Amino acid sequence: MPIVTIQVTREGSGPGRTSVTAEEKARLIAGASQLLLDVLHKPLESTFVVIEEVDTDNWGWGGLPALEYRKQRAAGGK
Amino acid sequence: MPIVTIQVTREGSGPGRTSVTAEEKARLIAGASQLLLDVLHKPLESTFVVIEEVDTDNWGWGGLPALEYRKQRAAGGK
Amino acid sequence: MPIVTIQVTREGSGPGRTSVTAEEKARLIAGASQLLLDVLHKPLESTFVVIEEVDTDNWGWGGLPALEYRKQRAAGGK
Amino acid sequence: MPIVTIQVTREGSGPGRTSVTAEEKARLIAGASQLLLDVLHKPLESTFVVIEEVDTDNWGWGGLPALEYRKQRAAGGK
Amino acid sequence: MPIVTIQVTREGSGPGRTSVTAEEKARLIAGASQLLLDVLHKPLESTFVVIEEVDTDNWGWGGLPALEYRKQRAAGGK
Amino acid sequence: MPIVTIQVTREGSGPGRTSVTAEEKARLIAGASQLLLDVLHKPLESTFVVIEEVDTDNWGWGGLPALEYRKQRAAGGK
Repeated sequence: MPIVTIQVTREGSGPGRTSVTAEEKARLIAGASQLLLDVLHKPLESTFVVIEEVDTDNWGWGGLPALEYRKQRAAGGK
Repeated sequence: MPIVTIQVTREGSGPGRTSVTAEEKARLIAGASQLLLDVLHKPLESTFVVIEEVDTDNWGWGGLPALEYRKQRAAGGK
Repeated sequence: MPIVTIQVTREGSGPGRTSVTAEEKARLIAGASQLLLDVLHKPLESTFVVIEEVDTDNWGWGGLPALEYRKQRAAGGK
Repeated sequence: MPIVTIQVTREGSGPGRTSVTAEEKARLIAGASQLLLDVLHKPLESTFVVIEEVDTDNWGWGGLPALEYRKQRAAGGK
Repeated sequence: MPIVTIQVTREGSGPGRTSVTAEEKARLIAGASQLLLDVLHKPLESTFVVIEEVDTDNWGWGGLPALEYRKQRAAGGK
Repeated sequence: MPIVTIQVTREGSGPGRTSVTAEEKARLIAGASQLLLDVLHKPLESTFVVIEEVDTDNWGWGGLPALEYRKQRAAGGK
């Protein structure tokens, strides 16, 4: 009866995309469910997967909003 | 000081509805708070309830997006 | 396919108890599942309930650890 | 590697605002990350912060939707 | 910067085991991180995975504590 | 009515400590509650803080259990 929660920023994975696509979500669901089957022998029908998309403003890393932190890392030393 | 989090798919509960209504949310809040009062004697004013509506694309069951899994169950054996 | 998460402090609900009992947990599970059936017509077998017991040291209210806050409320004005 | 999740109602913090501003979110992210650095010596770049804004309809307190509960408290005794 | 949370019951995956092993946890962590890399091109070092083990008493399904529900399914029709 | 959830590994913050101390927890609770008061004018008594301590085996980063990943970072290039 596992529950897998996947939190990601609401962004596209490539140029011209602004969010996670339905096809990518389906692959995340399939992959996470399969992982629980492979490692812990949990039947597919007993696993729930919930995907939460979080606006980039609402995600912080390094003490900064996510996009600023990425810019800083890209520019700066680290 | 309980916190009750209720995650449901963003869908209507009957024909012509496309989401959980404000009245249904109020009933979920009242019912969950009452449950904590009845079972654990927690006063109503010390319980928080948070309802999270999840797009059907973002909910997986049986290794599939939720709507596909339901279709498969309705059609198939189980 | 609802998921209901119930977070409570790890305490007994009456004298001589130091934690939530298995019988109380079963009542929380039954009640939460029934609520989703009554309000949103979700079949019992599609609802998961997860109970999380949190040490009182790890729960804060009013800017204080929970037990201190309760003492202050009991003693003080509010 | 801490994760700090901040759940708040989707409301403005003052007249003329209807939601948490980007500047307020940045302050929450900075403050929460700094807190983990100060108390537990966690480097800023190892802390994630996720802000979840919850519609007021979806938040319950005192057995009621949040806005109704506030009205009742403002009006009533407590 | 994804966060993957995996909630499972605290049980062994085979005879003679009473909990998820460290080796199984490492496989869950590796697999979930790889999934985010494959599907959304998230670098491994930007993904956090948190595994939460939940006592079987604290997990409900079908309106019952998980072990009772399993017994009922095994015995009964469904 | 904010809820702040702080997830950290179950470790001491200095030599000779194997877990977060009660005093550190109290500081996290005070600081998080104050932050919500300062930034969003939320009264202290309307904020809940929940601290979740996660075993280091159960926390993944960089595709590895947390302690292995730290070792690798300390040893290796990054």
